[in-house]
Amino acid sequence: MTGAAPAYLASVGTALPGDPVDNTVLGKLLGVSEEWIDIFVGTRSRHFGRDLGTGEVRWSLADLCAQAAAEALESAALEAPDIEFLILSTTTPDTLLPTTASQVADRLGLDYLPVYQLQAGCSGAVQALDLGRTLIASGRRAGLVIGGDVTHRHLDFDRELARIPTDELVNYLLFGDGAGAAVLTAEPLGERVAVRGVLNSLTGLGRPAGQTVDWYGLTDRDQDRPLLREDYKAIEEQVPVMAVEIFWELLEQVGWQVEQLDHLLPPQLSERMTTRIVERLGVPGVHEVSCVGETGNTGNALPFLQLARLLPDLRTGQRALGVTVESSKWIKAGFALEKV
Amino acid sequence: MTGAAPAYLASVGTALPGDPVDNTVLGKLLGVSEEWIDIFVGTRSRHFGRDLGTGEVRWSLADLCAQAAAEALESAALEAPDIEFLILSTTTPDTLLPTTASQVADRLGLDYLPVYQLQAGCSGAVQALDLGRTLIASGRRAGLVIGGDVTHRHLDFDRELARIPTDELVNYLLFGDGAGAAVLTAEPLGERVAVRGVLNSLTGLGRPAGQTVDWYGLTDRDQDRPLLREDYKAIEEQVPVMAVEIFWELLEQVGWQVEQLDHLLPPQLSERMTTRIVERLGVPGVHEVSCVGETGNTGNALPFLQLARLLPDLRTGQRALGVTVESSKWIKAGFALEKV
Repeated sequence: MTGAAPAYLASVGTALPGDPVDNTVLGKLLGVSEEWIDIFVGTRSRHFGRDLGTGEVRWSLADLCAQAAAEALESAALEAPDIEFLILSTTTPDTLLPTTASQVADRLGLDYLPVYQLQAGCSGAVQALDLGRTLIASGRRAGLVIGGDVTHRHLDFDRELARIPTDELVNYLLFGDGAGAAVLTAEPLGERVAVRGVLNSLTGLGRPAGQTVDWYGLTDRDQDRPLLREDYKAIEEQVPVMAVEIFWELLEQVGWQVEQLDHLLPPQLSERMTTRIVERLGVPGVHEVSCVGETGNTGNALPFLQLARLLPDLRTGQRALGVTVESSKWIKAGFALEKV
Repeated sequence: MTGAAPAYLASVGTALPGDPVDNTVLGKLLGVSEEWIDIFVGTRSRHFGRDLGTGEVRWSLADLCAQAAAEALESAALEAPDIEFLILSTTTPDTLLPTTASQVADRLGLDYLPVYQLQAGCSGAVQALDLGRTLIASGRRAGLVIGGDVTHRHLDFDRELARIPTDELVNYLLFGDGAGAAVLTAEPLGERVAVRGVLNSLTGLGRPAGQTVDWYGLTDRDQDRPLLREDYKAIEEQVPVMAVEIFWELLEQVGWQVEQLDHLLPPQLSERMTTRIVERLGVPGVHEVSCVGETGNTGNALPFLQLARLLPDLRTGQRALGVTVESSKWIKAGFALEKV
């Protein structure tokens, strides 16, 4: 795809459910101190679609994705009939069928178009961008790419949380819910950000999974297997190394010198991890665009949340690089942008 | 995509788990007669990845998909390094992460390539074909498209089945497990079947879902909401109408006269429904290629299972049309093939 005509990001929209949950509130629920959360993950707040007090689910994935996509559409000054495809990526679909993608299409008034839902983790937004760019290159004029997650489906705040093992407790500190969307166009429009390159490559051959997110069916819901498992040791060892590799591979793909780079959107596993990755990358002149400290790890939403922070600062001629690592099966992902 | 260079189906592989479960065995488990099954659905047998006697899961989705894909690769005389992308579609992924697509890539020895997993129902195989064709048109030389489902995740044969309502009982009669795969190439290879057209269009705006397939997370597994719901009245009314529309829309897209058509791959919800759809289509000179009578409704696997039956009969110059309807949110899907 390197030589293909670029697609353009015309706009970005985001959605975060309700008020932020800070470490004072979260620490109390989990029976740990604010300092402990700060040392372990460094993330200061996050949002959840589920009310942690009453247990009521107040925002579904479709709610969040439709809100983000509507904002992106409005921002690009486009309407439903202009949109020729929709791609939504998530780890946590509301139902398996109908897809959340088709529910979101319904909310937006979209009809008679191809609608795809990608099952993915932290690389999902990039996978959606990758396919969106390919669809634009094949002749579509405009489409929506959307990413979001409702991580609360895998977190049970009604459990006796003070007694769960530390490695499981970390899940409750890291994640948050949210969604983001972007309008992709064949011609420069709105924000006029050209997608110069995309990296999307499975590199997991023979490597054990770093992250497992499971679901229960009818026959296995009584099993006590955990739904969410992370190999944090493997993640801490391998993600920074992969992030550096992605950074340089992307620069090489688009033929940029590191000195030409203005903004960096680094991986957002946790505030602590992002700090370490940025230190390791060692590109001090480059402006870092992160959100994980305020949003937590929102999975498929993250790159869109970072893009929403980038856009007001991205000036004509400037260049930005986004890097994300999916630890489930070790997917290298990233993108290179340039405002024209 | 109509005007794009065609991709070619080089080969197809399939996988069905274990021995077929016939209506004598199924009727006994469900407390209904063979005649009753025949009248309601007409399907004669199906395969399940789960042993209905012991409850042991013997074939995962990854097992079935890897087997089908390995067969397709071997049949096309291609090896892992030749494959430049993998797309897998399913309703029922083994886990949410890692994706079954990346697990299958691992089994096949694939690495350093983009791997996509589509969440979809009966239109999934066509969606995968659609994206695969677009990736081929954008410069990839060969890739794998795979579809499969393990419907047993939503069927609990340990329940007191004789007492469940009829509309729920029908689910136990309709479905089966299986997987299929095809190698897509940029140049004619192996079977040399050109993909002349693809239809993939959501048409669900404002229409209630015809099928809902749900999953349980950690916080909701104690809820007694059903995981699998079908609006069979809506399906019976709308699927035949949509099938006829898809048939003519596809013919128009590729500019074929109905007299030029040699083979038809109709929707495969059940043997009864397929018979009615084929009668309604009213194209008596066209050879029907169906498998649902022996395999049940295997969701994302179906079009590949039909293709495997078509290929030995498809002679050079002959044309085939595949039609499938996803009732979840009413997706029109189909494809037009020609052996060159």
